[in-house]
Amino acid sequence: MEQLIRQFPLSFPTFQRGQVWLVGAGPGDPGLLSLLALHALRSADVVIHDALVDRRILTLAGADARLESAGKRGGRPSPSQPDISRRLVALARQNLRVLRLKGGDPFVFGRGAEEACALAEAGVGFRVVPGITAGIGGLAYAGIPATARDANSAIAFITGHDASGQVPDGLDWPALARSVPVLVVYMALTHLDEITLRLIRAGRPAQEPAALICCATTPDQVVLTAPLAEIAALAAGRSLKPPAMLVVGRVVNYRATLNWLAGETP
Amino acid sequence: MEQLIRQFPLSFPTFQRGQVWLVGAGPGDPGLLSLLALHALRSADVVIHDALVDRRILTLAGADARLESAGKRGGRPSPSQPDISRRLVALARQNLRVLRLKGGDPFVFGRGAEEACALAEAGVGFRVVPGITAGIGGLAYAGIPATARDANSAIAFITGHDASGQVPDGLDWPALARSVPVLVVYMALTHLDEITLRLIRAGRPAQEPAALICCATTPDQVVLTAPLAEIAALAAGRSLKPPAMLVVGRVVNYRATLNWLAGETP
Repeated sequence: MEQLIRQFPLSFPTFQRGQVWLVGAGPGDPGLLSLLALHALRSADVVIHDALVDRRILTLAGADARLESAGKRGGRPSPSQPDISRRLVALARQNLRVLRLKGGDPFVFGRGAEEACALAEAGVGFRVVPGITAGIGGLAYAGIPATARDANSAIAFITGHDASGQVPDGLDWPALARSVPVLVVYMALTHLDEITLRLIRAGRPAQEPAALICCATTPDQVVLTAPLAEIAALAAGRSLKPPAMLVVGRVVNYRATLNWLAGETP
Repeated sequence: MEQLIRQFPLSFPTFQRGQVWLVGAGPGDPGLLSLLALHALRSADVVIHDALVDRRILTLAGADARLESAGKRGGRPSPSQPDISRRLVALARQNLRVLRLKGGDPFVFGRGAEEACALAEAGVGFRVVPGITAGIGGLAYAGIPATARDANSAIAFITGHDASGQVPDGLDWPALARSVPVLVVYMALTHLDEITLRLIRAGRPAQEPAALICCATTPDQVVLTAPLAEIAALAAGRSLKPPAMLVVGRVVNYRATLNWLAGETP
């Protein structure tokens, strides 16, 4: 890898003191990190990271960078979202280069929009570095294409938790079930039983192909496939770790042909 | 950037002779390329790229790599999809390291699934390297979060062209319009008028916030915002270049606060 970047013909924006960069770390595999995210890790004075960010990615931070988990801080209980936003503003006002590192993409069910708004309102300069979201990249590592010409001209990403931790109630599940051929439910493990029942009640066939993908693109990746009506029972018999996504739709059938990772770990 | 990778503590899978890697180049900004994609570019013997892949990204290929556009080849008309798949198989059988480089993510409306199936059926080993899709990363560069807690617990990506080049007819547009708070239509420019009319007829409010994002994350990025009923007329008055995405939903309003790129080029 060292020689990869020799004579690298690109330049990157300068990570300015007093700025916050909201950066997506991707789904897990450090190889899926973007060049800008790596540049940010090497430049940052402090890295505020989600608990889900892969350890191997954190090792890429500069030797002098301070790492701080947004999940736990100095033995105190998990900070609330407003606490995290306030922390980002406070660190930026110390004239530090502040990297906020989030799993996946910062704007996909990651509350990044709230953090960005808090920065904008505080007058703190920021930049967004998108990341590869598990609903696309994690599917690819399971041999499941997000779209295929004969299967779907649309795909939807849905969160399995709303702000209160429950399956979102504001959605019109029957219309969703009817209109989108491929559904990817993020954070699907806690309420998997309820989510699959809700989809079947909303009109998805009980026998429709479904997959549950846990810890996508990491060495702990687990992929289960079963008809939609059976996947929750199958998952209940295993000790699975979050994060997990549920995929529903004919694209799941492609795994039989496209499981390029078979036998290897990511 | 050179010093970025000094003592880089990661190793990457070896790009084997006779293999094809299907790699996403991201939406345009070379900084959004993944480390694995860069590794693949530096290792490949031949790069078969889409016309839409940014020139700056192609300069990252190794000095000995042969670049071949899948859009045009030696003055012949654009090859068909089966032609491209056959070409990938033929090059792999010459024992070359074959990089198939696609804009965005290879499995998001890019016909990557067809290419992967052709490789699997021919017994050619392959690997998929996901990329950042414009429907997420391009939105972020326009200051529009794909999701926001007060706006949407679901987002759908739809192609504006089906296989025949027309707006997809197989979709239940009224159910789609009712069920998904944020819609992102890829390849939206050709049929923009029809797409917006269809969404309004399907029940989306004529005054709903909409954005058209062209050439996202590149120096040519153009972002137009208007109510859904007016955006096609606004776009018609400008000479816009594809690729373009239509974004419909309340997340568009965040651009007023979150347009971090304002005044700069990506």
